[in-house]
Amino acid sequence: MTTTSPLSPATARTGRDVRLACRSGTHDKHTSGLAPGYVQANLAILPAAHADDFLRFCQRNPKPCPVLAVSEPGAVALPGLAADLDIRTDVPGYRVFRDGAHAGDVADILDLWQDDFVTFALGCSFSFEEALIEGGIGVRHIDLGVNVPMYRSNIATLAAGPFAGPMVVSMRPFKPADAIRAIQITSRFPGVHGAPVHIGLPRHIGIADLSRPWQGDAVPVGEDELPVFWACGITPQAVILDAGLPLFITHTPGFMLVTDLKNAMLSLI
Amino acid sequence: MTTTSPLSPATARTGRDVRLACRSGTHDKHTSGLAPGYVQANLAILPAAHADDFLRFCQRNPKPCPVLAVSEPGAVALPGLAADLDIRTDVPGYRVFRDGAHAGDVADILDLWQDDFVTFALGCSFSFEEALIEGGIGVRHIDLGVNVPMYRSNIATLAAGPFAGPMVVSMRPFKPADAIRAIQITSRFPGVHGAPVHIGLPRHIGIADLSRPWQGDAVPVGEDELPVFWACGITPQAVILDAGLPLFITHTPGFMLVTDLKNAMLSLI
Repeated sequence: MTTTSPLSPATARTGRDVRLACRSGTHDKHTSGLAPGYVQANLAILPAAHADDFLRFCQRNPKPCPVLAVSEPGAVALPGLAADLDIRTDVPGYRVFRDGAHAGDVADILDLWQDDFVTFALGCSFSFEEALIEGGIGVRHIDLGVNVPMYRSNIATLAAGPFAGPMVVSMRPFKPADAIRAIQITSRFPGVHGAPVHIGLPRHIGIADLSRPWQGDAVPVGEDELPVFWACGITPQAVILDAGLPLFITHTPGFMLVTDLKNAMLSLI
Repeated sequence: MTTTSPLSPATARTGRDVRLACRSGTHDKHTSGLAPGYVQANLAILPAAHADDFLRFCQRNPKPCPVLAVSEPGAVALPGLAADLDIRTDVPGYRVFRDGAHAGDVADILDLWQDDFVTFALGCSFSFEEALIEGGIGVRHIDLGVNVPMYRSNIATLAAGPFAGPMVVSMRPFKPADAIRAIQITSRFPGVHGAPVHIGLPRHIGIADLSRPWQGDAVPVGEDELPVFWACGITPQAVILDAGLPLFITHTPGFMLVTDLKNAMLSLI
């Protein structure tokens, strides 16, 4: 009889370590903290009939939808992102949507796979949060061990085909001098949402109550702090839901695709 | 009988044009808008006995005191800043301080010159304001044709010798998205104050009432705007005053030293 050790930052040192553990079924949990330094990506898998519209939507809205890689139709690889990748098995969990509604989470999508599926990997805020922490700036929801608070803003995205709707934003509070530094640091990472889209006046982007996020967990904002808002990688999931597609697949929230890229490789400057 | 045409952006195209007009006595006014694109600098002239302390003060406080050039004692040139410069005549007006008090403004300092004078040229916000405007971001006090509002903050400078005291900050209001962009743009110009030091919560840096600046003119801040604060080039004048030096000379406010450098040459990125 053998016991399976859970993955940890010590045992999952690279993106490949995480992917192979997912493929073999020994890891089926969130990826936070695993493969430190490696880029983790949001996943969106759509039939080819909608993929061109979606790619155009991403091109028009690079802050919420920074495309790291797009597959060929039906291909299970993502060129440039991971040398040894089967997108059907290498993510710890998948969320299936049918006709614009959540239709369950699965451990792999071998049985659901279609020859016309196109896979998108989109940048994730994990990459810039690592740079913030390395820069000496505390990230509230990480310090508290909760999920980042996310809000539907009134900032419109630019529509493409059936894809349209408001931008979802994530919020991190900082003292003003740290907020300025956070803007500088995240400006270096346009491939993972880049600089914030708003600071300081949430009601002006349609957020009436910071204590009631649309997704994630509320975090306290001190009276000596400003809420800082970044375009959020959940935006494409929201617009895909609104578009009411017959079928699309994403990752289970927090169960990311871990790649072979290092976060530091995404820094422009 | 001849009449002297006042300098304009059309007739004063380079820093040298402005300096020669000052030297010949045909220009004795502010330099705002002259020699578009050229770096204008704050001036501080001190006896050598205090210059080492002051240079160390600037090194410790680069945001309010970004040193563009320092002269040899007694020299009227500033290497690297202007090819043809006599610092005694080439600024449109000089302000003289004795024993820590304003002792009058003069058109040149030929009669006041001492063999032990050391000249400092310090970066000025004119350079980054040009970059903001070129970036499509309006600067309120320029749009209103008034002087930038300046406040004594409670942000301490790092002392050196007799030089110490709170940082003076200038304020420009922006809508939040423009404030983020202004932070990005000014981050490229560390030689002229660089990124802001504060945003959004003036009482937290000791400013109780934005409508009552310490120097300059108040400007309106919309309810959809944030006040953004930069370290101000008037800080060294404030600390030199507080140090009560027997003699030091600066430029008359707004009557800057115009150099041969272009603002764009100060951009890091």
